[in-house]
Amino acid sequence: MLAPFTWNIRVYYEDTDAGGIVFYANYLKYFERARTEWLRAADVHQHDLAIDQKIMFVVKSSALEYHAPAKMDDELELNTAVIKLGQASLHFLQEIWCGQTLLTTARIKIGCVSTETIRPCAIPAEILKKIQVAHSPLI
Amino acid sequence: MLAPFTWNIRVYYEDTDAGGIVFYANYLKYFERARTEWLRAADVHQHDLAIDQKIMFVVKSSALEYHAPAKMDDELELNTAVIKLGQASLHFLQEIWCGQTLLTTARIKIGCVSTETIRPCAIPAEILKKIQVAHSPLI
Amino acid sequence: MLAPFTWNIRVYYEDTDAGGIVFYANYLKYFERARTEWLRAADVHQHDLAIDQKIMFVVKSSALEYHAPAKMDDELELNTAVIKLGQASLHFLQEIWCGQTLLTTARIKIGCVSTETIRPCAIPAEILKKIQVAHSPLI
Amino acid sequence: MLAPFTWNIRVYYEDTDAGGIVFYANYLKYFERARTEWLRAADVHQHDLAIDQKIMFVVKSSALEYHAPAKMDDELELNTAVIKLGQASLHFLQEIWCGQTLLTTARIKIGCVSTETIRPCAIPAEILKKIQVAHSPLI
Repeated sequence: MLAPFTWNIRVYYEDTDAGGIVFYANYLKYFERARTEWLRAADVHQHDLAIDQKIMFVVKSSALEYHAPAKMDDELELNTAVIKLGQASLHFLQEIWCGQTLLTTARIKIGCVSTETIRPCAIPAEILKKIQVAHSPLI
Repeated sequence: MLAPFTWNIRVYYEDTDAGGIVFYANYLKYFERARTEWLRAADVHQHDLAIDQKIMFVVKSSALEYHAPAKMDDELELNTAVIKLGQASLHFLQEIWCGQTLLTTARIKIGCVSTETIRPCAIPAEILKKIQVAHSPLI
Repeated sequence: MLAPFTWNIRVYYEDTDAGGIVFYANYLKYFERARTEWLRAADVHQHDLAIDQKIMFVVKSSALEYHAPAKMDDELELNTAVIKLGQASLHFLQEIWCGQTLLTTARIKIGCVSTETIRPCAIPAEILKKIQVAHSPLI
Repeated sequence: MLAPFTWNIRVYYEDTDAGGIVFYANYLKYFERARTEWLRAADVHQHDLAIDQKIMFVVKSSALEYHAPAKMDDELELNTAVIKLGQASLHFLQEIWCGQTLLTTARIKIGCVSTETIRPCAIPAEILKKIQVAHSPLI
């Protein structure tokens, strides 16, 4: 990946299941936390988007490969990169690493929708610009 | 308890933690499912309340005792009884049983709030009546 | 799909997010509940597998398409079909419907692993037979 | 509270519900994260406890008061203090603050149990000492 955004996440009891490892649905939560922090680093705040702009980002598709499990107390490193940026959508490639081990890979497609109609709408120009400025090498 | 409302819940992988038992925060989810079904049995639907009446029920306090753990695949029986019904609040006593074993006891205080202000408001008369009619022996 | 296994799931508050719809990671929980019930219908119980056979099923990959959102109080119908059955793996195609609307589609690859080593191992013959007998038209 | 341990937690989408606020069961997750970090600060690691010492800490009771809700993107401050330390148990008082607003208060009783029998057992002397050394003013 080309200079992705990096975010660290600690594994807690709540994330594990009776198999003794992180419940696989919870990786989607980790990936979303990383995307939220990536947006925040670009000065885009989702709560404000919903209130001020009446838009929100929703996940259109997710494709995850689970290579190796994370365990209680692990400190994970998440890499997040935009691989495609459209007028109303973003495609992400994300990875979770524990030390030198790649645990999980995700391809996530996000759409921008109106909070009122839940229908697709263009990403507002000022938001798009913030994303482009912050992450131009990746796009 | 006096003729409480009964609802069954199955334990799935998602509910367990690395200790091999149900993660204790998840009992709050089970208790809420049972209260939702208790309301539904009284013909009160929370999604409609939020849309039509602009109110919602929020939890003000929860006190849980964890006596014994539930495990993957267990089929649990939940008992739900109203022990106090006010103009803007409900107090519940709830229990989770697995066969003849009492697993968890909960005392939950619920308040009725406006969805717009998140401030307390009286339970609408028609809703209150539905609850009283359905559950008069308990109140 | 060819005569899939069907399981119904109700949406509760715990499943929703601030967008007013089901949080997309939670569909993975729904799909797993349906697979667990599909196994149970074939007389295979995951808790017993872990204790008696020292094996467990783990998710190797998940690919989900989110077509339309589910909302609080919705009653969902899940279809589950095995589309490939190997010696140590199962591939599932699963769908979530709300009435006549297809909400979500999933392709899930499952592997059988030892609970001790977390490494792949063959599905025990008796378990494989139960799955084949119960679901032969699908395989 | 007397010089409690402090830990910050950010609210993400996964934590919210259709009411637009943090789902109240999720505060139990936040409180547990804070207790885990409090233990880690005392050089006690729960994954190691389970593997090396065959013990784990389980929650015996939880009593929470929900004063005001947290919202998406809030950065919360959690205070954690031991108010009683026994041979096989710990009692915690915990608080969640958002800026100058107290959101939630919790009283949590924890027991030490064997991972094999899930029955109470004494906290190992070396663990107890670490806790006492790190947190003597609070006990």
